[in-house]
Amino acid sequence: MIDNKKGKMIAFEGCEGVGKTTQIERLKKYLDEQGIPYVFSREPGGTETGEEIRKVLKNEVLDMSPEAELLLFEAARCDNVKNVLMPALEEGKLVICDRYIGSTVAYQAFGRGLKRELVDAANEFGSLGLKPDLTIFLDAKPFANTKRSASDRMELAGKEFHERVYAGYKKLEEEDESFVSVKTSQDKEETTERIIKLLKEKNII
Amino acid sequence: MIDNKKGKMIAFEGCEGVGKTTQIERLKKYLDEQGIPYVFSREPGGTETGEEIRKVLKNEVLDMSPEAELLLFEAARCDNVKNVLMPALEEGKLVICDRYIGSTVAYQAFGRGLKRELVDAANEFGSLGLKPDLTIFLDAKPFANTKRSASDRMELAGKEFHERVYAGYKKLEEEDESFVSVKTSQDKEETTERIIKLLKEKNII
Repeated sequence: MIDNKKGKMIAFEGCEGVGKTTQIERLKKYLDEQGIPYVFSREPGGTETGEEIRKVLKNEVLDMSPEAELLLFEAARCDNVKNVLMPALEEGKLVICDRYIGSTVAYQAFGRGLKRELVDAANEFGSLGLKPDLTIFLDAKPFANTKRSASDRMELAGKEFHERVYAGYKKLEEEDESFVSVKTSQDKEETTERIIKLLKEKNII
Repeated sequence: MIDNKKGKMIAFEGCEGVGKTTQIERLKKYLDEQGIPYVFSREPGGTETGEEIRKVLKNEVLDMSPEAELLLFEAARCDNVKNVLMPALEEGKLVICDRYIGSTVAYQAFGRGLKRELVDAANEFGSLGLKPDLTIFLDAKPFANTKRSASDRMELAGKEFHERVYAGYKKLEEEDESFVSVKTSQDKEETTERIIKLLKEKNII
C-alpha cells in the first residue's frame, strides 16, 4: 500500500498503567534534543474522524458488541494510516504510535475473545497493510504500576480481562520478530535508556 | 452465525430519493393491518452504538477516507445484526431493513471506488454472515423522483457518484438471485402492490 516509505515506524504497546505515556514523552524529549524529526500518533484518534470515533469508543455507557468495537478501532486506524502515517513515512519522518495493531490482537482477540483470524484480517484491512518496523512492548503486569481510577471501556473491563491482554502480548512476543519486550524498571530513566539503546541497535534512530 | 433462524429477512435498496422510505412505511402499514409481526431496522443505526456511529457518518464536515467510512458502516451493522436482527429472526419475526449489504457494494465499491473484494470481505464481517432472504431494489435512476436538498455525506457526493451507485445496484441484480428489482411507478400504490405481490411469491409473507 505504501510505495515510497522512507521513514521508520515504531509502535508502543503495553497493558494499562505500565508507564507507556511517560516513556513516550521521555523519548519525544530525547528526539527533540537530538533534532530527530518525528510524527506522534495516538490510537484511536489522529484525525478529525478518528477523534470522533474515539469519543464513541470511550463512551462507557454504550453496551457495544466486541465486533463493533473492533471495527471502530479499525475505522479510526485506517483514516489515520492514510492521512497521517503514510504521508509522514513518505517524507522520511520517524513515526511513533501509542498503540497499533498489537493492541488489537491483545485486547480484542485475547481480551474480548474474538477469533484471532478475524482480528488479524481486520488488522490487515484497518492498517492498509502498514506494519511497524519495530514494536516496543513495555513488559509489566497490568495495574502493577498504577493507581489510576478506571475511566473508560478498557480500564473498566476487570482484572481477568487485563491478564488475558497481557498473555496476548506475550504471545505476540513469541510470534513476531519485530515485537520486542522491554522490561520496565521502577527507575523511569533506566527504562528510557533501554528503549533508546534498542532503537539504536535496530537502526531506527 | 445464526443457529436458529425461524424468521425471514428482507432488505430494501435503492438510490437517493426513489421513494424507499415511503414504500417501507406503506408495507409496514399493510403488515400491521394483516397482523404480521415484524422488526424494522434502518442502517446505519438500530442500536445505541449504531446511532452514535450514524452521527459520525452523517457529519459532512469530516473529510473521512472511504476505508474509514466503510468500516464505520460495518461497525454499526454488526452491532445491529447481533443485538437486534438475529434475536428477531430467532423469534420467528419478519425483519425489514432499510439498506443492508447491497448499499455497501453500491455506495462504497461502485460509488467510492473501493475494491469490490475488500467491500465483500468487510460485508461478510460486518453482517456476521447474515444475508437477507430477499433484497428488493427499487429500480429508479438517482434523483429522478426527488427534490430533497442535499443534507449528508452521501447526498452531497454528486451526480456521477450516484450514477455509479445505480450501476452497482444493476450489477448486483445480475449477480444475485435474491436481489430483485421492482420498477417504481409514479403511482405509489401500484409500487406497493408490486412489492406485496413479490413478497407473497417468494413466500416471505
